[in-house]
Parts: sequence; structure tokens; C-alpha cells
Amino acid sequence: MKISVLTIFPEFFESFLKLPVIKRGMDKGVCDIEIVDIKNFAHGSFRHIDDSPFGGGPGMVMRCQPIFDALNSVCIENSHKILLSPKGKTYSQSKAREFALTDHIVLVCGHYEGVDARVEEWMDEQLSIGDYVLTGGEIAAQVVVDSVVRLLQGVLRENSTTEESHENGLLEYPQYTQPREFNGLSVPEVLLSGHKAKIDDWRLTQSLLLTREFRPDMFERYELNKREKKLLEAADNDKKSND
Amino acid sequence: MKISVLTIFPEFFESFLKLPVIKRGMDKGVCDIEIVDIKNFAHGSFRHIDDSPFGGGPGMVMRCQPIFDALNSVCIENSHKILLSPKGKTYSQSKAREFALTDHIVLVCGHYEGVDARVEEWMDEQLSIGDYVLTGGEIAAQVVVDSVVRLLQGVLRENSTTEESHENGLLEYPQYTQPREFNGLSVPEVLLSGHKAKIDDWRLTQSLLLTREFRPDMFERYELNKREKKLLEAADNDKKSND
Repeated sequence: MKISVLTIFPEFFESFLKLPVIKRGMDKGVCDIEIVDIKNFAHGSFRHIDDSPFGGGPGMVMRCQPIFDALNSVCIENSHKILLSPKGKTYSQSKAREFALTDHIVLVCGHYEGVDARVEEWMDEQLSIGDYVLTGGEIAAQVVVDSVVRLLQGVLRENSTTEESHENGLLEYPQYTQPREFNGLSVPEVLLSGHKAKIDDWRLTQSLLLTREFRPDMFERYELNKREKKLLEAADNDKKSND
Repeated sequence: MKISVLTIFPEFFESFLKLPVIKRGMDKGVCDIEIVDIKNFAHGSFRHIDDSPFGGGPGMVMRCQPIFDALNSVCIENSHKILLSPKGKTYSQSKAREFALTDHIVLVCGHYEGVDARVEEWMDEQLSIGDYVLTGGEIAAQVVVDSVVRLLQGVLRENSTTEESHENGLLEYPQYTQPREFNGLSVPEVLLSGHKAKIDDWRLTQSLLLTREFRPDMFERYELNKREKKLLEAADNDKKSND
């Protein structure tokens, strides 16, 4: 797949493109990431990319013309055009999976003081990565690119994405590695038992308990199967008898 | 304020620290951002920062010892320690405002295959920037640092953050700048009128309409005042009579 990022800070992506996962995706040829400098499309001797807002108010607004021309330079027939904006719908893992099946996505990085609203007319959608204010869409673009590229075949080890938080609707179970004891804290016995079925049960139970406690919204959307209901019941009974 | 970022990819932050807002915050002395390489705290000749999980499973888990020692090297009495993890509570603008009033925050960047769960015991909280899976906590740390630094006094122009999306519970109104006409799209008449009260009413109405349409969840939480109720009613009546 191809990803084009339209930005006024192309140099910001230099470190990003060197991240192992991103580099692996590009080296293996599974993705082609193109960083396009919007400033190169600003006409006139001053190459202004922004101007004061009509109707007054603080700050500057990004002009629509350089973005329009930058879009035209990269888009092909089926390009999916996304404006990263605090006004957008909230980005989620299901969107990441959708984008990972798209031939060409174009990410336009807005800036905090605003983008001329006419740009929205040329977009397929607007996305926000969360309910907080960022200076620009550049970090948001990294979020989208990272979350998409890691889903492309051949970028990560097989099966390594299937048990992650948010991937199956539950938070991930706790993980432990060496040493068995550190600073008074030890690894749960069951993980050292070598008993695969018990370990699987424990992990699934932990996922369910963690999700119910920390993300009741996710838990509510999750449909428990028979085994999960039984494990959760057992954990609740254990807790009751320990209280 | 001071922000310490504990990461296994310190070089990833090179471009980030050059972003205008971040650089301004540091140059003005309103924030001190320290990037700490967890790898420097990994003991042993191989300096392993990760190892296979107890109980089996794909991937590697970040070891707790290097993180423990890195934390000890940067923390003072009131340091607020945050693990960036898909298991955390969802980060929001109110958290950003809370952090902007904190003397020292420490951001620990987890990695996608997991962090030894004992690390969680040493944290004050765990945060996630959204319901999607990232390769590591590094991009999430940039989200937190950017959203916090721009709230610090002297980093942005006075008043420039008060009318932004998410800052007052509503999405921002549409902004327009030169030219008045572009590619068949024109700037709304009212913004060219010079009539300040009408412009204010139009902008507030647009904010309310946009929020109701695109973020019903935010709109539901928002308490409309008398003026806002009246503006929204007028807009709905206008729409009805146009239909």
C-alpha cells in the first residue's frame, strides 16, 4: 500500500521513518511512505501557507490553495483522503484494519489554529486520534501510519498482533519475564507451572478482569462466550471466599 | 516543569524536540524535557532489555530491572510516574491540563509485545492515547508532551487555546482565510460582514451544530446556556423552513 503524508513539517518525519517497524515495512516493500511538503505548493513570492481568519480572531488559518495543489499532485483515482483534525471522528483499531486494506491513503496534517474549512470538502473523512489538543496533525499522522503499517503482512511476526489489547475487544493479560523475583515482587506461580491449559485460563481470566475494571465501556461491548462466563464466575467466587 | 521520557528509542525524539512549540517551551525555560535511554540501565554483557514471557507465547517482554533503575535515576519525591500502555485509562484534555500544573512527570514508553507487569506497581497511573494498537509508547509520549507543553504559559499566544476543539467541550467553528473564492467554494457571507456580534453568533451556532452532528457524546455532556439554546433553536427553525 502507499501512504502519502501532506505536512508543513516534513523534517519531523525523519526520525519516524527510521523506527524499526516502519523501516521494515518499507524495506520489505509492503508499504511506500511519501512525505509531501505543503510549503512547496504555496504560490507567490512569500510562499505563505497561512493567513488571518476572515471574521477576525486570534491565530492564523492554513490556506486552502497549497493543500489543494498538494492533494492534486499525489492523488490517483481511488486515493482515500483523510484530514487529521480535532473535529474528526475518533480513530480506532477497526479504522486501522480498514486502512490496512486500502491501496492509497493520503493524510493531511492540519494545524492547531485551524485549516480553511473548504479543505474539508475535498476529503473522504476527518479523523481525530483522541479528545485532546495537539499542535498539529503530524503526531496524529504518525499514530495512523504506525498502527496501519504494523498490520501489513510481513511487518511483524506471525500471530503477534492477535492477542494484543484492543485487537480482540479485551485488554491484554499481564506479561512477566526474567527474573522470577525482583525487588520483592514475584511472577505468578501459574506461569511457572508449565501447564498450558491452566496458563491459558489464567490469562483469559486476567484479560476479562482487567477489562471489566479499567475499561467498563469495552467490557460492555464485549460478548462473553460460555468459557469466558465460567472463568469470570469462578474468579468472582474465589474473590468472595477470600474476602 | 520537567518532563522525563524513558524509552528504548531515544533517537526517535530528535525530530520531535525540534518542533517549534516544543523548542519554544525549552528555549523560554518553561519546560525541561529529558530523554532517558532505558538501554543504558540494562545490566549484563548483552544489555538485554527484553526476554521471552513466562508461561510462553509469541514475542518478547520488556524486563523490569532496566526500567526500575532508569526510574530511580530520574525520580524525585513528587515525580508523577506514567506508563504509556494500551491497558491504560484514555488520555484526555483534562489530564493534559492536570499535567501542565505538575512539577515533574515521568513517561515510560512501553512496547507492543508487553512490559513486565511488575513495572505497573511502581507507576502512579497508566494511560492510553486511544483505542488502537501502536508499536510502542514513543508516539503516545509525544502526544502527551505536545498537549501539555502548549498549555504552559508563554508557549503559545495568549488566548489562542481557549476557542479550540475539546477545550470548552465543543468542536471548533469553521475557519476561512484568503482567497474569498477558490475552486468554486466561497467564504460564508457573514464572515465578510464586519458585524462582530453576528459573527460571534454564527461561530457559536456552527460549533453547536458540528458537535451535535459529529460528536453526539460530547454534545450530550455539554450544558447549553440560554444563549446557546436560543441559537440552536433558531438554526433548527431556519433549517425546517428551508426544507
